[in-house]
Formats: sequence, C-alpha cells, structure tokens
Amino acid sequence: MIEGSKEGKLNRRLRLGMVGGGRGAFIGAVHRMAARLDDRWDFVAGALSSDAERARLSGEDLRLAPDRVYPDFAAMAEAESKRPDPIDAVAIVTPNHMHAAPAKAFLNAGIHVICDKPLTTTRQDADELQQLAADRNLIFAVTHNYTGHPLVRQARAMVAGGEIGRLRVVQVEYAQDWLTTALENSEHKQARWRTDPAISGPVGAVGDIGTHAFNLAEFIAGAEVASLAADLNVFVEGRRLDDNAGMMLRFGNGARGMLWCSQVAVGNENGLSIRLYGDKGGLEWHQENPNVLTFSPLGEPPRLIRRNGAGSAPVAQAASRIPAGHPEGYLEAFAQLYADIAELIAARLENREPDPLARQVPMAADGIRGVRFIEAAVKSSAANGAWTEL
Amino acid sequence: MIEGSKEGKLNRRLRLGMVGGGRGAFIGAVHRMAARLDDRWDFVAGALSSDAERARLSGEDLRLAPDRVYPDFAAMAEAESKRPDPIDAVAIVTPNHMHAAPAKAFLNAGIHVICDKPLTTTRQDADELQQLAADRNLIFAVTHNYTGHPLVRQARAMVAGGEIGRLRVVQVEYAQDWLTTALENSEHKQARWRTDPAISGPVGAVGDIGTHAFNLAEFIAGAEVASLAADLNVFVEGRRLDDNAGMMLRFGNGARGMLWCSQVAVGNENGLSIRLYGDKGGLEWHQENPNVLTFSPLGEPPRLIRRNGAGSAPVAQAASRIPAGHPEGYLEAFAQLYADIAELIAARLENREPDPLARQVPMAADGIRGVRFIEAAVKSSAANGAWTEL
Amino acid sequence: MIEGSKEGKLNRRLRLGMVGGGRGAFIGAVHRMAARLDDRWDFVAGALSSDAERARLSGEDLRLAPDRVYPDFAAMAEAESKRPDPIDAVAIVTPNHMHAAPAKAFLNAGIHVICDKPLTTTRQDADELQQLAADRNLIFAVTHNYTGHPLVRQARAMVAGGEIGRLRVVQVEYAQDWLTTALENSEHKQARWRTDPAISGPVGAVGDIGTHAFNLAEFIAGAEVASLAADLNVFVEGRRLDDNAGMMLRFGNGARGMLWCSQVAVGNENGLSIRLYGDKGGLEWHQENPNVLTFSPLGEPPRLIRRNGAGSAPVAQAASRIPAGHPEGYLEAFAQLYADIAELIAARLENREPDPLARQVPMAADGIRGVRFIEAAVKSSAANGAWTEL
Amino acid sequence: MIEGSKEGKLNRRLRLGMVGGGRGAFIGAVHRMAARLDDRWDFVAGALSSDAERARLSGEDLRLAPDRVYPDFAAMAEAESKRPDPIDAVAIVTPNHMHAAPAKAFLNAGIHVICDKPLTTTRQDADELQQLAADRNLIFAVTHNYTGHPLVRQARAMVAGGEIGRLRVVQVEYAQDWLTTALENSEHKQARWRTDPAISGPVGAVGDIGTHAFNLAEFIAGAEVASLAADLNVFVEGRRLDDNAGMMLRFGNGARGMLWCSQVAVGNENGLSIRLYGDKGGLEWHQENPNVLTFSPLGEPPRLIRRNGAGSAPVAQAASRIPAGHPEGYLEAFAQLYADIAELIAARLENREPDPLARQVPMAADGIRGVRFIEAAVKSSAANGAWTEL
Repeated sequence: MIEGSKEGKLNRRLRLGMVGGGRGAFIGAVHRMAARLDDRWDFVAGALSSDAERARLSGEDLRLAPDRVYPDFAAMAEAESKRPDPIDAVAIVTPNHMHAAPAKAFLNAGIHVICDKPLTTTRQDADELQQLAADRNLIFAVTHNYTGHPLVRQARAMVAGGEIGRLRVVQVEYAQDWLTTALENSEHKQARWRTDPAISGPVGAVGDIGTHAFNLAEFIAGAEVASLAADLNVFVEGRRLDDNAGMMLRFGNGARGMLWCSQVAVGNENGLSIRLYGDKGGLEWHQENPNVLTFSPLGEPPRLIRRNGAGSAPVAQAASRIPAGHPEGYLEAFAQLYADIAELIAARLENREPDPLARQVPMAADGIRGVRFIEAAVKSSAANGAWTEL
Repeated sequence: MIEGSKEGKLNRRLRLGMVGGGRGAFIGAVHRMAARLDDRWDFVAGALSSDAERARLSGEDLRLAPDRVYPDFAAMAEAESKRPDPIDAVAIVTPNHMHAAPAKAFLNAGIHVICDKPLTTTRQDADELQQLAADRNLIFAVTHNYTGHPLVRQARAMVAGGEIGRLRVVQVEYAQDWLTTALENSEHKQARWRTDPAISGPVGAVGDIGTHAFNLAEFIAGAEVASLAADLNVFVEGRRLDDNAGMMLRFGNGARGMLWCSQVAVGNENGLSIRLYGDKGGLEWHQENPNVLTFSPLGEPPRLIRRNGAGSAPVAQAASRIPAGHPEGYLEAFAQLYADIAELIAARLENREPDPLARQVPMAADGIRGVRFIEAAVKSSAANGAWTEL
Repeated sequence: MIEGSKEGKLNRRLRLGMVGGGRGAFIGAVHRMAARLDDRWDFVAGALSSDAERARLSGEDLRLAPDRVYPDFAAMAEAESKRPDPIDAVAIVTPNHMHAAPAKAFLNAGIHVICDKPLTTTRQDADELQQLAADRNLIFAVTHNYTGHPLVRQARAMVAGGEIGRLRVVQVEYAQDWLTTALENSEHKQARWRTDPAISGPVGAVGDIGTHAFNLAEFIAGAEVASLAADLNVFVEGRRLDDNAGMMLRFGNGARGMLWCSQVAVGNENGLSIRLYGDKGGLEWHQENPNVLTFSPLGEPPRLIRRNGAGSAPVAQAASRIPAGHPEGYLEAFAQLYADIAELIAARLENREPDPLARQVPMAADGIRGVRFIEAAVKSSAANGAWTEL
Repeated sequence: MIEGSKEGKLNRRLRLGMVGGGRGAFIGAVHRMAARLDDRWDFVAGALSSDAERARLSGEDLRLAPDRVYPDFAAMAEAESKRPDPIDAVAIVTPNHMHAAPAKAFLNAGIHVICDKPLTTTRQDADELQQLAADRNLIFAVTHNYTGHPLVRQARAMVAGGEIGRLRVVQVEYAQDWLTTALENSEHKQARWRTDPAISGPVGAVGDIGTHAFNLAEFIAGAEVASLAADLNVFVEGRRLDDNAGMMLRFGNGARGMLWCSQVAVGNENGLSIRLYGDKGGLEWHQENPNVLTFSPLGEPPRLIRRNGAGSAPVAQAASRIPAGHPEGYLEAFAQLYADIAELIAARLENREPDPLARQVPMAADGIRGVRFIEAAVKSSAANGAWTEL
C-alpha cells in the first residue's frame, strides 16, 4: 500500500456542508479539494453565497441536490439538523466577520464545525464559540492549514523531543506582495474585503497572514507567546488596514523571537518561513518548498530531512501520501486536516479513541490564540510598540 | 473563483474503473487520488487484484458496489460494457507485463483506456494497442504524469514559441537511490517486480524512470530523438536488470542531448531534471521543486518563473489550481491528466471540440515512443553503445 | 585584460603599517591578505602585539625589517612619521577598546588610518576621531568590509537609481552560532574578548555583527535609521554581554525595518542577509553566496543578477576581478576596500581627483553611525524596547 | 592565528617569473593574484608578450625591474638561469600551442615550471615534458586550479577513505554560454584563439573546459578513466572547433560516468559540477558555490558540509584561510596551488620533506591525462562514438 494513503481506513464517508465558497470565492474550493483528496468526505450541502441566485448557481456547479442548496446558513443549520442524513460537519469559509454567527448556528444545531481563520474579529465571539463547542461536546476545528504539513509536524515533534535542546530563538515571517499597489480600488474581490475593516476586523496583513505565522510559531515551539511589541504599518496610500508589520516576541518559556508579515514585499508570493534555535540545534522550514526540513545539530553539518525520506519521523510519514522526492504541497497539507477531522468525528461515531496523530488539528483554543495575537498587536502598535501581553 | 479550479466546469461526473491497484499496490492509489482531486470522476468498478480474496477486500476498502468488484479484467470488461451505466474509462495500473491484455479487452469492449507506463513490454503489443484504439475511435491515454505539471507545459510552449530559439542541447536525468542495495531479495514487492524481467520486460531503471525522462525530453523539446547510444549497467550483484544507464541522444532536428537514469545514486529520491538550450535562451526544471522554471534569455539574468506567478503562461495557469507561492506537486500534476482526459471524453459525449489544452495528454503514440526508446537502449547497449535508431 | 584586475593602475605601491594583528590574532591576517591581493600595498611596519616578544616574533614571521617592528603604537607613530619613507596608512586591528588611542596617535602623526569596526566603544571617542581626521585632512576609513562586495554596491546603486521605487521595508540579519555554548570559559581568545565588557564595550553580538548588519542596511538603503526599538538577550548562563538581539527600525525616509543578530543561532555560520522592498521592486542578497543578487521588479519574475554577469552594473563590474561564474568572496570584498583606499590616498599624492567609485569606502562618519546604533540599542533595551533615536 | 593563514610559515619568499600574461591577457593576472595572496612569492621577471612593445609596457605596469622584462621566453630562461637570484619557478600562461616550447626551455635551464592547462596540444610534447622534468628532477605543476578548493580535496579524501563505499557512478559537467554566438568573429581575443585550431589544438570546449571536468573527476574519484565514447558537436555556424560535447566514461575500477561540456548552454557561466555515487553514499559539489559539499550517506539525510565548518576534514581546513561562512572562491583555490608549489620548492631548498598536503598539486602526469583525454575524445567522436581507450 502506498505509504500514507488515507483510503480504506474508514469505510463510512462523512458528509460535509459548507457556508460560503460559492462562485467567485477563493478558499471554499480549496476546502473542497482538501476534503476530496483522501476520500473521507462527501460534499452534500451548502449555503454558498449570501446572494440567492449565486447560491443556487453555485450549488448546481457543484452538483448538490437542490433541496440541500440553502439560501442562508440559518436555514441550512436548521434543515440539516432535522434530516435523517444530516451533514456531519460544516466548513465555514466566509470572510472573517461572518465566522461567528454561522458557527454558533451550527453548534447550536449539534453539528461539528470547521472554521477558517482568523477565528473571529472579536475576542468575545471567540470565547463564546469555544464555550459553546465545549458545552455541546462538539469538535470546533480551525484551519491553520500549515500545521498539516508532514515536516511541520515533525519539527514540532523534534522540539518537543528535545532534539534542539532548550528553545531560545524563534524567527518567523510571512511575506507576500499582492497588495503592493492599491488593488482594493479595482474589482479584485479578495483585495477589497481584506482591506476593509468592516469585514476583516481591525487588521489587514496581521490577520490574514500574521496569524498563520503566529500559529505556526506556537505550534512548532510548543510554547505560548507571553507578550509582544508591534509596529503596524500602512504603506499604500489610502489603505485602511496594515499591509506590513514587525513584531518582537517573548515566549512564556523564556525564548525570544521576531515576526514579520507583509503584503508589500515585492517578489514574495507566500513566503512563510520559520527558524527555531535551541541550545542543541536549529530547525528551518519554508512553506514554498515544504518537502525539506533543515536540521542543524550543534557542531554537526546541517541535515536535509525530506518528507517521507531518510530521517523523517513517524508523525511526518503518517501525514504523507506519496514517496519521498515526489513533492506534496499546499492542498495535501490542507487535506491532512480534513482527514484528521474525519478521524476525530468517526471515532466519536464509533465510540473509540481517535488516532492520536489526529489530535494535532488546531481547535478553538488555537483560534482564540490568533484573536488574542491580533488584539495584542493592535494594542501594542497603538502604544508605540509597548510590550503587551496576550 | 480560485484561478484554476476544475470544479463546476463539467456537470456530469464520469465513471472510472481500475485494473490492478488493490491492497499492497502503489500506483493505483495515486491514480485514484488524482481522479478525485478535481471532482470529475466517480470510481465505481475494479478488478483490483489477480488474487480473488484480495480483490474482494480491496473493493470493500474502496466502497465499491459488490457487483462491480470483479475477479478479473476480462469479466469486468464484458460486464461493464453491458451495463446501462458502464464505466467511461478504465485505468490500468498493473505491472508492465500486464498492460497489453487488459487494454485490449477494454478497447474491444468499447471503453476508453488510461494506461500506466511503460505502455507494454514489446513493440508489437504497443503497435497493436494503438491500432485498436484508432480502429475503435477510443481514447488511449498513457500516464506520463510529469507532463501534467504547469511549468512543464509552459516550457513546452516556450520552446514551441521560439523563446529559446533554435534548440541545440537537451540534458535530462532521473536519479533515484532506492535500489542501491539488493532490496529485491527482501519482501519489498515493488523492488521484486521492477527487477524481474518476466514482469518488467528487458529493462529495469531504463523502463521505470528512463522512459519518464525520455518522454519529458520529447514533450518539452517538441522534437523526436532520432537515435541514441546507450550504456546500461548493473551495479548490484545478482540483479537481473539495469540499475543505471547513460545515453547520448541525437534529435531529428539536429539537437543533441544526454540522458542519465539511475536507481543507485545515493541521496537522490526522484531527481528528475531537465535543461534545454537553444541559440536564444535556456530553460531548467526540476521535478522535486516543480513550482519554479528558470528561464535564461541570452545575455540577460536568469528569471525565476513561478507556477501561476509573474511570467507564467496561460497554459500553465490553466493547469494550476491555487495561487502562486502555494506549492502544487506530484498529485496535482497527475490530477491534471485525469481532468484533461475527462474533458476529452466529455467533449465526445457532448459532441463538441475539447478544450485544446486537454490535447496535451500523452496518448498511445507517446507510449510507443517509450517502447521504442527501451528497445533502442537495449540494442545499443548490447552493441557496445553503437548509435541506434528509434 | 581580465575585467576588474586592479594591477597596473597604480605604479607606486603604498606602504602599510599595522597595529595589532600579531600571532594568535584573527582579523590582522585578513587585512594583510586583502592589502596584498590587488598589489597596491607593501606591508612594511607594525606594532603587532602588546606583548613585546610576541610583537618581535610576529614581525619576523611577516618579514618586516627589524627597525620597523615596534613595541607599541605610540613609538611606531612617532618613528614612522619621521622616516623619509613613512607608512602611508596604518591599519588598526586591535580589539574594540584599543581603537581610539592608536587612531589618535597616527592621525596626530599625519598618517591616514584604516580602522576596524566598531569604531570605538564610546560616542565621544568616535566624534573626536572624526574631528581630528577632518582637522588634519586625513583619510579615516572604517572596514565595514561587506560594502566591498560588487553586488552590494550594485544594490545600493539600484536603490539610489529608483529601480525598486520608494523604499518601504528593510529586513536585515546576521546570524552565527559560534557562541552557542560558553566558549569564553575556554582558552578561545576571540570568544573571551568578545564577551568581555572591558574590551568589547557595552555590547556583544550587537557590536560584533549587529553593526555590520546595520551598516549594510544604511549603505544599501542610502538612508539613515532614525530610531529603533531593541530587545537584547543573553542566553548563555554567566555571559556578560548580549548574544542575541532583535530590533525594529524606523528610517528617516519613512521606511520600516527589522534587524536580528545572533551568535547562538545553531547552524548559521555568517548568515548576513538583507532584503529591501520598495513600491516598484525588491532586492535580496546573502553574504554566504555573495555572487548573486535577486532583483524582483513588480509584476515580473525575479531575476538572478550574478557578479560580473548579465545585468551587472558598472559599479559592480569595477569591483570585480574575475569573470562571472568564478566566485569571489570575503577576501575579495575586503581587498576592494584596500584598493579603494589606495586610490584615495594616491589621488592626494598625485593632486588629482580619485576615481569616484573609490568614494564608497566607509569613513569615520559611518563608524560613528555604528557607535550611535550601539548606544541606541543599549538604551532602548534598558527601557524595555522604547523607541530610541540614534 | 587565523585558521588557514599561509603567512609566516615560510620566511623566504620565492621568486616567480611569467611567460605570457601581459596587457590584454586573461589568466596571467589570475596567476599573479593567486601567487600574491598567501605571500610566498615575489613576481620579479617576465616575457609577458610576444609583442616587444607590449612586453615592455606590461613590465612597467607590473613594476618589474627593466632588466628582467624580456622580449621572449628563450632569452628569459637563459638570463634568469645565470643570475645569482634567479626565479625559482616560471608560470607559463600563454595559449595552448605555446606551452611546450617555453616549458622545455625553462626545464632545460633548471627552473621549475608551473604550466596552464591543457598541458600541450600533442601527446608527444606532453610526454617529452614529463620526461624532461623527471630527468632534471624539477617540479612541473599543471594548474588544474579546481583541485585547490578545500572541499574538492575533502571529497577526494572521503572517496579514498571509503566514506561513499565502492565507487559506481561519476557525473561531471562544465557548462558555459559565452560562445553561444560567433563571438570569434568580433575582436574578442579570448574567443578568437579558443576557436582557432592553430592555437587551441584539435578541440575547443573539450580542451578549454572539458579537461577541467575530466581532471576533477579523476582527482576526486582517485581512479582513471579507461575508455570513453564521445560526441563532439559544433553548433555555431562557421565555428571550427567543438562548442559542445557529450561523453560516456568507463573507469578502470568498474565505475561508469558521463561528462558534458558546453560553451553554448545559455544561462551557465562556469557551471562545473560533479556528483559521485558509491554503494554507501553520494557526494555533490558545484564550483559556483564551492563552500558547500553535500554528502549523502546511504539511508540518512544529506549533510551540508561547509568549508572549514562542522564536518570539514583536516585536508579541507588546511586549504582554508578564513572561517566557515565567509566564502572563499576561485582565487583562493588557485592560490592554494601556488602555496603548495611554494612548499614543494621550499622543501627542496631546505632539504626536507614537504608537507604531505602539498603533494596534491596536479603535475605533468595529470597534464598528460588531460592530453590523452582530448585525443581519445577526438578519436571516438570521429569514429561515431566508438568506445576509445585513453
């Protein structure tokens, strides 16, 4: 059997619904590809757009049964919860400001939730969602998708296993260039909502990509950032939200770090990179070439650990589908979250413990960390970079 | 809409069957993941193993309807052709020596064929298959999957468009290391059949990976190799087929080249790389980092063209799913072939011309080129490297 | 003629003396190699060690005439200034705290000075040196050697020429790992003085390598850092000076940046890297592979400009010795400063204007910037990262 | 002391003369920079050009004493041999066809010779030179300069030490692009003589850069190529010598290999690269980034061995001048040969054994291998690629 094939491990496919993700949307199609890849999900229902006609057409595009193409999330949550074959989980892939309301509706309807990041635009919403999921005993996953990369998981395991010793320094960054010009003044839908405070919340780059960098740092470090000092910048004239930000980080365990996120760094597409240094070694990983993890043991030559190759850890192999040297990428990592979430739900349906590896999926608590990060960054920057607790 | 999403372009899913690919197999799972990714295929039938019990269990694993789990390909071809809802195409993913017979059976049953490479172990079989597909007016695709990479297609278009001028030199190689030791003496199934002449035919590395390198060279060059001089080597004691080979190439258009394939090159996983040089520019692409194509115009700095990024061509964008900087890999390229084949079949069902881009899928004629390449390599090497026509 | 050969351009060699740099020293030998490479200097005199016997033996090693091997810098300055064939310039390569006194002595003796960095350990000393050099109309060069790299000079010229548009973001770092452990507790001479406040001044990593990063940023940006917020860290127990530091930068022209320097980043040897982003393009350069400059024009693929290759600028070609593709490195860049300083001095001796390119050599004013940078970093960090003016 | 500084190890500088290398020449300046760097040579005499006036002016440029600026090599050999302070060695840096005659003259005059490559244009000349040097007990070094790289020496030591096991495969190449067009039709002096059979001998690219690749392969492999099959090509219309060549190699020890050299590979500057594979590991080195050697032990992640860094061998450290992470390049490697030759001569003058490391310098026997390589390549290609013994 192909090493990491997820097929055949679960004989019952789960049913997936979606809020958002209709025609013209971006991340919804990614979620659907991710859900399909490992054959654990059937996509069966959706409230795909706030525009009724677009919702209907999108449902047709995606071959949903007409009675499961809903005009809005509330109708969908109610109807699905009453079906004999309801969706097992809903993916919420709307813009940031529209995460909280549908999430609450589905949780209240007893349906597991898979929510895009950042979790919410306010801390209060985030806390409520976590509480609600806990009260209802439902899974509330947040798609910090980079945690699905095999070598990201290996890096986390190596840090936890002491392979780089006591952690000292974390350098993380996420650099893009697609907002170098005032793209939001064009018809570019993604640019418009990502620079609109009414939709994105109080931050631009910090929320869109800074949260990914922050999550990746905490995920691999296995430690929380205690406080940060931030400088949020707007370089494009007339832009209402930050398009670049620098931060210094202090972790609770004594490590220090820096975080940079930018959407005006010309030449960078999705330059998410992280480096961690302990007193016994260093680690380096780049999202744009995710099949290599550089491990430098103190006093030895750096080693190139390749996904599913020599030196790869069981935790990385388990998240791989194909042999070393055949690159997996963004969609495969995203698919890993969907495979893991399927395992978590299936284990509940089957009254068994889930595969421990599936427990790596980021949950509401991780989403809340992201919201706190945003709040602290805004507060610190407003206070001219004062160190601010998360 | 996410740039290259294949969803929603075809409202009718096609039905896919498979010969081979059951428990313990490798490439079958890859074909299924590839078929799923873009949502154009339902996998509904299979003769998944020559072992009846394994076939049955594999069918269960994959949730096939019991009546479409067949004990052998002949029964499957016959039964499917008589169903009101027959499979639209069959994927043949058995070892090399078992391609020809099932391919003939399905062609005779009027079913399109998607066949793994190398096409067959004899030239005669290959020619017959091509003729049969032509006679029956059926699609006969060969999964030289690397042709599905967006930047491979762009490289081909650039050469065809004269961007590197008149082609002079082609350097191609495919280096692995998994057969450095006598792995075939263990229980390793892949190693056993790939080094067994009764199953693989007259070549080892040359057939398994050399054909990929050869196909890639001809695909991008847009030109045929007229003759070659080969030196096939066996380095592991007791091995019956070549595990390393060097070749010099002469193209019909006057270009020269070299091809190296090895399964004993320690440190290489799937080191498929190609470089092409004309009188106005050069191109370089590496399978292990497929999201970058280096283009060097004469007298100018090399440019890093990134998949779906600045400088990417329409033909590359059309084969992309996600934005630049989010890596796509092996499965996405493989999926592109399945999406294209679906388009070719759908166009026939709908009495329309297919999207011209879908015509890039390698067909029987390309498979025959691979078989000729193998024959010429064997013949040349037996004649101490004499130049041998293909 | 070999493109950038410096030979034959100056028929009179200049005479060089040195303070420090005897047996057991590090940077002195680098200065001598740099001075030799382009054949513009004869090394003829030295006060090579504060230990008289070591000074004598070092002079023998280096084949100095015995009467020009001096026991101390004061004697040397006096004696040389009275010779008919005095040294034209003195290189001061002692530890940080021993720069100011000999520099003053030689300036007072009318001899040009080439001083290692950081210029001094106090701002007052630095200012006095600059004033003294100005009063005596003498050259006072500071060996921020990375400015001698051809592609660093090209980057500076490109920024000045508007090729990346209006500057927005500067990310610079210098990461090493040689002080990951308490090496200063061993006999390691370099480690001992670099962690000793009495010798190094108030900073460790910040002074040793942070100043290089800072200088490189200002040199290429062509702009001054107006203020910074710093977090200086000591990770190795018992260490008295910072071994890691993070900083946020605000440039006077509105650009923002980050600076990281570390001597505990395991796996890094001399990881000095800089990236600059404007509204029309980006630039990236790495000291460890200095023969490539990546230039990303907005909306176009990144271009790999190679030293002396296609796309290299006159200013880079003038600082090159050998053709593109034959790597030049650290010593060549260092030698460029010596060649340029020779040109500056020769022009004075010959009553002519120097080659304008030679004017790129960092001078006392640049050294003062480094001292201010250190002071601001210490002050900011002591004030918990408050933004501090330079 | 700076790790690999060559200073102070030899108190007597040696005296160097040069034939060729005057104004307008290329490689002569490289030899002089290389000789200067480590302070073991004084350049004191020359027959710098066949044009008398150019010879005189070149001597002035280089500050030679007028009585040691000679009109021709014969006069120089005679005069120098009669001086009380004769040159210790002569560097012969003329075009290929002008190596043999001056070499004989200086050997006959009892002066050690340092000769550029390829050694001669005929096998007979090469053999005579070797014999003459042996008869006169003189050093006859051939500047295959890439053997001076620290990590090339380490690679050789690792192969010899069994670290990659029994050698199986050697892939070597040297790709340039400077002759992509008919540059020889311009005033470009280098292009003119390198494409002129009367000056270069029977080969173009094969002699100019193929010999470097061949030498590097044998040097690191520690084994001789027994036979080769070659295909020499001329791509530029009207060109008289090969500008591209492919070869297959068979080593005496059973290893196989391929060699490619090209001067029309657009985008390549000096792409000299080598990979070696044994049954226990692999090695990879690139001239354009010479400070890294990739070592892949079987079944382990590849390791990045950096010059003078962790994992570097004593033989590499001995050939280094500066710490790891500060790149050394082409000139430093070239200088290493000059430092080693100085050691070999000094040992003779001092009646002692030389440092064993200095014995790595390529000698006449290595030069003869290069001449045989050229002859075999020409012969094989003329016989349509027949395997031809060296």
